[in-house]
Amino acid sequence: MNWTVEESGFDLARVTTNGNKFMIGNGYMGYRGTLEEFGKEQLVAVTLAGLYDKSGQQWREPVNAPNGLFTTLLCDGEPLTVIEQEVISHRQELDIRSALHRRETVYKRPDGGTVTYTAERFASMDNLHLMVSKLTLCTTRDCTIVIQTGIDDDVWDINGPHLNDLQKNSMDHIMISTAITGELKVPVAVAELAVFGFGEQSLDESSLLRQLTFKAQAGVTYTWYKYVSVFSGLDGTESLVNEAITTVNAAVNLGYEVLLGTHQRKWEDKWSLSDVIIKGDQEAQFALRYSIYQLLIIAPTHSERVSIPARGLSGQVYKGAVFWDTEMFMLPFFLHSDPVTARNLMMYRVHTLEGAKRKAAEYGFLGAFYAWESQDTGDDACTLFNVNDVFTGRPMRTYFRDKQVHISADVVHGIWQYVQFTGDYSLLTDGGAEVIWECAKFFYSYAYYNPVKARYEILDVTGPDEYHERVNNNAFTNALVKETLEIAIQAADYLRTNHPAAFEAMTDTFKEGPFLPEFQEMLEHFYVPQPNTENLVIEQFDRYFTLEEVALTDLKSRVLNKHEYWGGGNGLATTTTILKQADVVLMLNLFKHSFSQEVKKANWEFYEPRTEHGSSLSPCIYALVAADIGAPDWGYPYFMRTATVDLTGESKQYVGDLYIGGTHPAANGGAWMAAVLGFAGLYFNGEDVHLNPSMPKQWESVELPVVLRGGNYRLHVGREEITIQASADNKSALNFIVSGGQVEMCQPGVQLQIRYS
Amino acid sequence: MNWTVEESGFDLARVTTNGNKFMIGNGYMGYRGTLEEFGKEQLVAVTLAGLYDKSGQQWREPVNAPNGLFTTLLCDGEPLTVIEQEVISHRQELDIRSALHRRETVYKRPDGGTVTYTAERFASMDNLHLMVSKLTLCTTRDCTIVIQTGIDDDVWDINGPHLNDLQKNSMDHIMISTAITGELKVPVAVAELAVFGFGEQSLDESSLLRQLTFKAQAGVTYTWYKYVSVFSGLDGTESLVNEAITTVNAAVNLGYEVLLGTHQRKWEDKWSLSDVIIKGDQEAQFALRYSIYQLLIIAPTHSERVSIPARGLSGQVYKGAVFWDTEMFMLPFFLHSDPVTARNLMMYRVHTLEGAKRKAAEYGFLGAFYAWESQDTGDDACTLFNVNDVFTGRPMRTYFRDKQVHISADVVHGIWQYVQFTGDYSLLTDGGAEVIWECAKFFYSYAYYNPVKARYEILDVTGPDEYHERVNNNAFTNALVKETLEIAIQAADYLRTNHPAAFEAMTDTFKEGPFLPEFQEMLEHFYVPQPNTENLVIEQFDRYFTLEEVALTDLKSRVLNKHEYWGGGNGLATTTTILKQADVVLMLNLFKHSFSQEVKKANWEFYEPRTEHGSSLSPCIYALVAADIGAPDWGYPYFMRTATVDLTGESKQYVGDLYIGGTHPAANGGAWMAAVLGFAGLYFNGEDVHLNPSMPKQWESVELPVVLRGGNYRLHVGREEITIQASADNKSALNFIVSGGQVEMCQPGVQLQIRYS
Repeated sequence: MNWTVEESGFDLARVTTNGNKFMIGNGYMGYRGTLEEFGKEQLVAVTLAGLYDKSGQQWREPVNAPNGLFTTLLCDGEPLTVIEQEVISHRQELDIRSALHRRETVYKRPDGGTVTYTAERFASMDNLHLMVSKLTLCTTRDCTIVIQTGIDDDVWDINGPHLNDLQKNSMDHIMISTAITGELKVPVAVAELAVFGFGEQSLDESSLLRQLTFKAQAGVTYTWYKYVSVFSGLDGTESLVNEAITTVNAAVNLGYEVLLGTHQRKWEDKWSLSDVIIKGDQEAQFALRYSIYQLLIIAPTHSERVSIPARGLSGQVYKGAVFWDTEMFMLPFFLHSDPVTARNLMMYRVHTLEGAKRKAAEYGFLGAFYAWESQDTGDDACTLFNVNDVFTGRPMRTYFRDKQVHISADVVHGIWQYVQFTGDYSLLTDGGAEVIWECAKFFYSYAYYNPVKARYEILDVTGPDEYHERVNNNAFTNALVKETLEIAIQAADYLRTNHPAAFEAMTDTFKEGPFLPEFQEMLEHFYVPQPNTENLVIEQFDRYFTLEEVALTDLKSRVLNKHEYWGGGNGLATTTTILKQADVVLMLNLFKHSFSQEVKKANWEFYEPRTEHGSSLSPCIYALVAADIGAPDWGYPYFMRTATVDLTGESKQYVGDLYIGGTHPAANGGAWMAAVLGFAGLYFNGEDVHLNPSMPKQWESVELPVVLRGGNYRLHVGREEITIQASADNKSALNFIVSGGQVEMCQPGVQLQIRYS
Repeated sequence: MNWTVEESGFDLARVTTNGNKFMIGNGYMGYRGTLEEFGKEQLVAVTLAGLYDKSGQQWREPVNAPNGLFTTLLCDGEPLTVIEQEVISHRQELDIRSALHRRETVYKRPDGGTVTYTAERFASMDNLHLMVSKLTLCTTRDCTIVIQTGIDDDVWDINGPHLNDLQKNSMDHIMISTAITGELKVPVAVAELAVFGFGEQSLDESSLLRQLTFKAQAGVTYTWYKYVSVFSGLDGTESLVNEAITTVNAAVNLGYEVLLGTHQRKWEDKWSLSDVIIKGDQEAQFALRYSIYQLLIIAPTHSERVSIPARGLSGQVYKGAVFWDTEMFMLPFFLHSDPVTARNLMMYRVHTLEGAKRKAAEYGFLGAFYAWESQDTGDDACTLFNVNDVFTGRPMRTYFRDKQVHISADVVHGIWQYVQFTGDYSLLTDGGAEVIWECAKFFYSYAYYNPVKARYEILDVTGPDEYHERVNNNAFTNALVKETLEIAIQAADYLRTNHPAAFEAMTDTFKEGPFLPEFQEMLEHFYVPQPNTENLVIEQFDRYFTLEEVALTDLKSRVLNKHEYWGGGNGLATTTTILKQADVVLMLNLFKHSFSQEVKKANWEFYEPRTEHGSSLSPCIYALVAADIGAPDWGYPYFMRTATVDLTGESKQYVGDLYIGGTHPAANGGAWMAAVLGFAGLYFNGEDVHLNPSMPKQWESVELPVVLRGGNYRLHVGREEITIQASADNKSALNFIVSGGQVEMCQPGVQLQIRYS
């Protein structure tokens, strides 16, 4: 089976896209899929998870570390680089089975000879501070080769510089680059050692480069290795430089092959818990696997103070900020395959609660208003002027920061999903309950009571469809707020019953209120838009139905500038029913059991032609609900669009001269959701496991491992039969219900085969 | 004393401005200050009050009648017209004492001779359907003159045509033009008769023109007269054409001089009740008198189904619609000088209540939401896209219509002002109380209760400052809503006590509520923004203080296109503290006795540099409050700017190719308010009369007549002494308090002299 992404030939125009497509990473750092000789112009980046810096008046963004894998070659005095040299062949490939990046370039020499250059690298999944690479060179004629390799500390930044006091040092042949971030004065250290089996290297500390010149003999393959370690002041180590040196030395002692072996075993473990096998559709198979790969290389397995930014670790785009994407689009994958990482993601919200409380207070509300763009502290990195008006060049006031209040409900939804799914209620006593209650309190203070209609409403918000800002009673938002109130009460009930002392202690500061009685009162009189009695459509927000009805193609024909923003005050879509992304339909997916198939179908059919899919978060939701309403083939194109977003690179890369590309973890998670929760029809809420397959016509089966309440299961969903294999190590049984049929209990070690139609 | 506006010489570029500046009218119709030979290209208009039409998909606007004063001349075969011919002299003048328009043009002839042509006209204040003109011609050499005169039915329309089935007829030498409006099929008839003391006229029915050719003898003055009547189907007459003919015949029988005499006596009466005499400032004197003139020619003395449009009767601009301008800027003048017309203006709101109820229902509210742009039915003529974006040419969504909810409070304020001021409570039983209660009901349904702050708030509105749309708790709006609730309760109290049976009958439909108990409950917990404890400034709306602080001049330097709109979604001012027009300061003027001088001064000083005065309604308010805080000389430039707006014509005339000029009745009313209620310091709320003079330094005195509770008084406000002369016909006495001194009662026929300092 195919586990390799590859691209042949070199095309300068693809450098940026391939930087995302061929990414490697290990959750601690991401390394863009650039080539060894590339520098900042080619957007090389070693992006560190969770370390942010603000330079001058520019916005805060993640810090990129110096690039310890930097290597250039000269042959007979001429540089060997794909950018300047003619190549006979060039191939870049990524083995997603073990996150191993490889390039092979055959250069043509003026004397008619060729130079074959290969390099492979990985960011160790065993030691997250380590990157290792193996490089080879073979010429067809004798020539003089100069290898220059070391650390490139001239890093690419969107809004840099972030690394101040850049120091260049060496010790025992190890190159050491150190720096301190400008804002928080966090030290960063990168150490590098290159090991050659030939020639004599000389170190140039002033450039952080080592140079090795040798006479290459035709037909001989020369191999060398690089060992690079990266540390920052966030790692909690005493001496950063010592730690970096020690790590490199230890790696050298083990050697490349051993390190690679360990790394690969870690990756085998990962895949054994997450690979989804689709039979009958090789294209979908690969795209889905690739999507999972993208999630695995950025998962913060090591820290509960880091979550996943909207562009993963593929650079500094979107300020390296964490959005609702994590809870709503990525969390389900981790819940089913890696609950520990899922817990980390949720604990990140616990650790950033104070920032969310500061934001609520800033706007005059109670409780916690989570950041639309969250970084290390939870303060909002989102600006009030987020988009430039292409017609005037002026910054445009948008309401992402102030009005997307659903973010607090999304966080609560994520925490409760985690608790229910895993049964790990310790998240509540570890701070999760405070988050829930503070968010409920926020919504209580945000809500208004309509005395004539005798109900609480949520006014002046922006829902998922960002083209319609400042609307009242957005169906999605209100449904989520209602859920927040319910969860706040349920969490209190659980803790009161099971941890009465902890409950008393935790609720001490909440007692002045508003608290549970107010939440209950609000819940009892809370308005959530319901399906229209005539056509079953749920109005996206108050008066949405009065907006101009225009076909999407017609609206596109009104575009005057291809970069113009469709939302905001005067946006093309603002006054029409055209939406940026799934909104009501997303709500129907979250609460799929609260609505009839007829309602879901009516809304899918109503909103689908009106959705622009201006966000990569949108298509997967239409795939999911299409599967839910028994129309998987309607959903299949949306699934494929989602699953291939980082393979095709067809998303927007630049706005003006601002690079906004990168990977799309939410779409990656969305692809997984569409395949597993949509087409395979898996649904688990902590009690019974439901399987309601609704597969595209060419799919023969979907097979995958899942972790449910700590037990391991392997599911094989065929077109007529489902097989469930419970691990013998499971501690308890679970009930499975296939296509609404009878309940079947699956004991540890047992394999169930259930036919369905 | 000077009562004449005049302009010498002819300048084509001044035709539009002079059309406004030299307007005549009588409340039934307005006639722009154009010349006899002008046609639609020169924006000739006979604008009929209260008659509207909608042509195709264009917006509704007032109907212009055919022009019965149309006259052209030929001399020896060549046209005599200021547009094409060289003139030796030309003068256009308007006698504002009797609304008499006069032109005199001396044409130069190729033979060296001259032709002197004069025309004077008036729209009779005695018979509102009648226009009369007197024309003369005198040549220095014998020549052949052709006079063509009749009815020009090729009318100027912004969004026409409105006159369908145009018929041309004649009967007994009377030319008759009839037509029917397109939308409501209202007939319009214009009849014309010209009376010559010389020559022989021939009628050409097909052109509605009569022609008279004669040999003019040098030195002889030839005089002729035109009698024109105008009727529409709104007049309640049986046979329009008969009525028009009868009116013309009756006029001819009386003759020009008798008609003019009657007309002038009516005008004498008007001035005797309204003229304000300023000593020491001739410029201010004339400007103020001219402002009063502009109000008198458009006052609907004849009908309680018509109010005053924002551009008076000067054409079709702003759809001929009635705005809050009437209640807030014009009503005070009429209350003090012509309570009957003031009552008509308020009854217009009673008659349009159903439209206001329809508008409230359209938006899902209870009660009455008055039209932002009101025409005959009270349905809102305001469109959702009111301004074009100059950068894209696209219509821009604005919120004038949906969010300027203060209009309903302005109407209530006006009604209550009328009732309190005049003591004429019959307005309440004639429908005024229903208006008040429906408006209060509207606000009750518009308001939301904030459970945390335990108060009702008014969210998502646009206040007077239209550059900041969709704000929460606009101080002006909330103060007016509070007043509405108070008035609703007070009106009920009055009726319950004084007209219990009527009260029972009137409140029958209100009893389901929300009604008085709810109003009371809302009032007790209603939020009105208060002065900041530190600097006494009242925040214009929630979070106004967080907007960008930028100097007005700096903001102007950001302008990219001089026609760009500063408000709306992406407007230059939208995200700054710069306001279009008086907002908090207007509120302080309305409720001047509820705030200390320190608060008024602090807010004047805070908001004055931040106010762009992008509306002609703004400067007069700064003049009023400047007088109030004892700084009349700060206010004087604002007063003069207001009082001269229609004399200088310096307001905006065109947006693109759309004519938006016209007269400015709100500024006219504002000039009167600044002079009388501001500088002379008159304040009457139905009980005692207060006089707190605060005059600009060069003003020696202000003298004026006022009608207070049906009694006539003449006030002379000097710098040290005030004289109050009560008419001997007064039925009762009134108390006067000067500069907060002791109460002095003024009995009928008595003259009080009160010194003050």
